[in-house]
Amino acid sequence: MNFVPCNHEFASVVRASFAQQGFMKMMGATLDRIEPGEVDISALYRDNLTQQHGFLHAAATTALADTASGYAALSLMPAGSEVLTIEFKVNLLRPAAGTRFTAEGRVVKPGKMITVSRADVFAYTGHAPVLIATLLATMIIQPG
Amino acid sequence: MNFVPCNHEFASVVRASFAQQGFMKMMGATLDRIEPGEVDISALYRDNLTQQHGFLHAAATTALADTASGYAALSLMPAGSEVLTIEFKVNLLRPAAGTRFTAEGRVVKPGKMITVSRADVFAYTGHAPVLIATLLATMIIQPG
Amino acid sequence: MNFVPCNHEFASVVRASFAQQGFMKMMGATLDRIEPGEVDISALYRDNLTQQHGFLHAAATTALADTASGYAALSLMPAGSEVLTIEFKVNLLRPAAGTRFTAEGRVVKPGKMITVSRADVFAYTGHAPVLIATLLATMIIQPG
Amino acid sequence: MNFVPCNHEFASVVRASFAQQGFMKMMGATLDRIEPGEVDISALYRDNLTQQHGFLHAAATTALADTASGYAALSLMPAGSEVLTIEFKVNLLRPAAGTRFTAEGRVVKPGKMITVSRADVFAYTGHAPVLIATLLATMIIQPG
Repeated sequence: MNFVPCNHEFASVVRASFAQQGFMKMMGATLDRIEPGEVDISALYRDNLTQQHGFLHAAATTALADTASGYAALSLMPAGSEVLTIEFKVNLLRPAAGTRFTAEGRVVKPGKMITVSRADVFAYTGHAPVLIATLLATMIIQPG
Repeated sequence: MNFVPCNHEFASVVRASFAQQGFMKMMGATLDRIEPGEVDISALYRDNLTQQHGFLHAAATTALADTASGYAALSLMPAGSEVLTIEFKVNLLRPAAGTRFTAEGRVVKPGKMITVSRADVFAYTGHAPVLIATLLATMIIQPG
Repeated sequence: MNFVPCNHEFASVVRASFAQQGFMKMMGATLDRIEPGEVDISALYRDNLTQQHGFLHAAATTALADTASGYAALSLMPAGSEVLTIEFKVNLLRPAAGTRFTAEGRVVKPGKMITVSRADVFAYTGHAPVLIATLLATMIIQPG
Repeated sequence: MNFVPCNHEFASVVRASFAQQGFMKMMGATLDRIEPGEVDISALYRDNLTQQHGFLHAAATTALADTASGYAALSLMPAGSEVLTIEFKVNLLRPAAGTRFTAEGRVVKPGKMITVSRADVFAYTGHAPVLIATLLATMIIQPG
């Protein structure tokens, strides 16, 4: 889908909000791509992000996916808006084994108040990326 | 509901698994309560766990809730089992404002292979606890 | 939780809306209980509501649960409001075997615009009721 | 994705199971497409499938989506298997206004025991199809 942004500064809005997230900073996460309705966020494997078997913790996978889908939603919102996650569901499809993880957030249905978005999370290990999780979320706009 | 554990060592099983989670260590999370089908986990507010408005990040709230509901499920499983989250849905009900956060994980329906569990997350600020999130999860057992 | 309705006619509002649902009529569903934030809806087993093994179809179970949780939300809304389901997640816990099925809808968190509610569905067979499904939903108010 | 079925009779397995569903019969639903990991199911608008505003009831939309994603999963399973829905989440994106509704079920991640699948539901009105709902489900195989 090709979305038309209503705020031409959408990329800098996303970057400014992302920079304020202590959690993303702690994860060492980076914004890889910001297009209208599409935001990708990556993080490298770290020992302090693991679950009990040494894989990336579901919460870390989820953090990338929720944040990417939230900013995908924000990229289509009017200037001054903020985005909040109302709820999401995530399926953890395979063990989160890899050296790098990328969440690809995409808007499913934009709205004036409610936006539905999704994210797929891929693990990279030097070979082809592996789909490890998929998330479906409901976002709400807070007007500026 | 009163559940009967099939492994009398359930509490030490949960403690041992929890101790191996880098993510829980990073959050400074603690196991407050381990009963059959019931596990509570808490963490204090920290700057590196925030979202863009300074509240606890949804991923941190979710980490507590997912982990508490997973260990509630594990507490009813046979010796040697491990637990994996297949999927969960979480509703973020109020801003995660507080100095301490506690997730109360409870088993809804135990099973030989699939266990459904839930968690409510409360924020503490000195007054009455405030319900900030509710999570519903599907867990799968990996036999020992 | 004890909720205070803001519309004293909440019960007749729910009854009037329910009466307009062709789907509920087709299922022969009945409104058993309407309290502030709490609505119960029942239906009897019917051959045209089955899945491939002769149990109640997940969609019929879900219809009762979604409708009960939606009207639980509506019962707390101002006069003239309508309620729409944004999304829900349902866990189907046991085979839907029984002669009667009751969904107990309950509000988790009321709001001016967004209300989160849940429903448990029980099967009756002459013995103790059996929990067969649990649903967690996000509802939105449409002002009158 | 291109999936390789492990049972060459997958299409007749799906057809036989579908034919036993009283609920699908009641809706007048039809199987439009059965490929490995992909099943489409349609139904026409009917008065007895409506909610209170005259649109297709969320439960009818959901019935199509859940069934299509379940049979998409079944199409990849060994001979003799049956499929059960463990859980699903559905987002209702737009009013279900149309004369015909088609759910396109697709497997996201096949598995020996657990398969994750999704479905998009489109409304047809003579113009371009409109996406009215998206569902994400967890299915479990019952071996033959």
